Amino acid sequence: MNLPEPSSVHRVGIIGAGTIGASWAAYFLARGMEVQAWDPAPDGEAALRAFVAGAWPVLEGLDAVVDGATPDRLAFHSGPAAAIEGVEFVQESAPEKLDVKRALYAEIDAVLPDGVVMSSSTSGLIMSELQAGFSNAARFVVGHPFNPPHLIPLVEVVGGTDTSATVVDWTIGFYDAHGKKAIRLNHEAPGHLVNRLQAALWREAMDAVLTGLASVEDVDDAIKYGPGLRLSAMGPFELCHLAGGPGGFSNFLDHFGDALQHWMDDMRTVELTPEVRTKLKALVAEAIGERAFASVAAERDTLMLPVLSTLARTRREHGLY
Amino acid sequence: MNLPEPSSVHRVGIIGAGTIGASWAAYFLARGMEVQAWDPAPDGEAALRAFVAGAWPVLEGLDAVVDGATPDRLAFHSGPAAAIEGVEFVQESAPEKLDVKRALYAEIDAVLPDGVVMSSSTSGLIMSELQAGFSNAARFVVGHPFNPPHLIPLVEVVGGTDTSATVVDWTIGFYDAHGKKAIRLNHEAPGHLVNRLQAALWREAMDAVLTGLASVEDVDDAIKYGPGLRLSAMGPFELCHLAGGPGGFSNFLDHFGDALQHWMDDMRTVELTPEVRTKLKALVAEAIGERAFASVAAERDTLMLPVLSTLARTRREHGLY
Repeated sequence: MNLPEPSSVHRVGIIGAGTIGASWAAYFLARGMEVQAWDPAPDGEAALRAFVAGAWPVLEGLDAVVDGATPDRLAFHSGPAAAIEGVEFVQESAPEKLDVKRALYAEIDAVLPDGVVMSSSTSGLIMSELQAGFSNAARFVVGHPFNPPHLIPLVEVVGGTDTSATVVDWTIGFYDAHGKKAIRLNHEAPGHLVNRLQAALWREAMDAVLTGLASVEDVDDAIKYGPGLRLSAMGPFELCHLAGGPGGFSNFLDHFGDALQHWMDDMRTVELTPEVRTKLKALVAEAIGERAFASVAAERDTLMLPVLSTLARTRREHGLY
Repeated sequence: MNLPEPSSVHRVGIIGAGTIGASWAAYFLARGMEVQAWDPAPDGEAALRAFVAGAWPVLEGLDAVVDGATPDRLAFHSGPAAAIEGVEFVQESAPEKLDVKRALYAEIDAVLPDGVVMSSSTSGLIMSELQAGFSNAARFVVGHPFNPPHLIPLVEVVGGTDTSATVVDWTIGFYDAHGKKAIRLNHEAPGHLVNRLQAALWREAMDAVLTGLASVEDVDDAIKYGPGLRLSAMGPFELCHLAGGPGGFSNFLDHFGDALQHWMDDMRTVELTPEVRTKLKALVAEAIGERAFASVAAERDTLMLPVLSTLARTRREHGLY
């Protein structure tokens, strides 16, 4: 398989330019690439260009626009075949429906240029089912971003049954070469990895409010004024290692393992029955209260963007990326 | 019960000045209070003063030292009775052993001044068992900080069976009045709330490496380059609300509830058998590799302190605290 040098890729195809695809487009443009996009929505091109125009000053503010990059290197095409002609990589972000994606894959499969990898943003579908039967299945892989991809570095890479191991390696190398942080999943799993980690936290958060342990506001505060303050610096294993003192993770398990087991044994799953959903919706609505959706979103960005900027600058200064 | 106005408290007792107690002492001193401390360790006073001296410039760097505060308002006493004489609040951070704490509580119970609340930093013990039988049990409460308390705002407040509801309210008001972020637990639970939330994340992280889904490094990266970047700005419910778009949390559950249920149904508990502990220790040791403990700790602080500073400044500027 004749794949290009990952760092040399300079033209990418964006198939599907909704929330995720448009954000990918903005990211690749900011990395100085040419982007060829397609989306079937009637206002697809206008919406994409508006998204990129809105994202650009944010990316500039984060020093995430490389020298010479411009939002003008964006071409919108009338179909998927035209959008992937001449590209060296394709990011597919079509709707999360197996039949919709497979119909699209059939069109792409017929014209995918040699040596081009197509990476799917799918969060919930299984690549083995998406790729089955296509002639270029070996070059179909999952590259699941964390939303929004133009701001958050993480991409989860996992191949399906028919994906070539070389393609998985190449895709990780491609994302890493272009400023993302790619992680490797060794096999397919519902929710990949990061949504499983998130769902584990959400499950316990939902259980806490459903059992009356704490209010929705206090659960949110427990995270953002507590462990959330460390989780942009260190992952869970590194933090447990540090919690063990100079004896590290080994000492941590020796000292806190029994307590941890006790807490885990007390955990329950949450069954999202209609009654439970209704109760959760009411509790969250009460906690959000009169705050407009836009003001909650603005609060997140007001707090998160300076954090991203601070982390990026600190990592650069200390060579920590 | 004649409790002081929370904001007027200016002299506190620190019982137990190990890692947690010393950090509490540094925090209260930075808030301009007088601190009376006791610890039974032979080098207790020297260790405490060294901790405060090390923490002070960090607190100054975070603009967390109020006008007029000085590390000199620290007195070290030869016993618990002397340390709590004349104080208006006691923070107890003795070792996490029921018999050790109860022996100490017996000494304190005999001399605790009227109207003074004693809050325990316990992370794992149950207040109902700690307080049982003491004459001042109504004023014994849990105020569990998130380590290190001089840097992380969160305090979990929960009463035992004999704790007065007024004392729980007062303790929340006391912490909030002095710059902490207190949350209320409505009943006792193993691990309180925040360690349950953390343990849920750790459990899924351990499961991922034990089942071979991903490496320890990639699980750590999945958090710190992904969801960890948002969790200092927003809690889990706020984030799910935003993930639902303008329809908010209700729309989120309608659209992602089935997927979430699917992921939760696929989760397993982790049994920390001797074999599992050995395997986890080996995997984490391999991931940490040659990095010295001190260098991992330094990396955390290098990244986390600017984040704390940025968040504090942004919250002040936008009135978001």
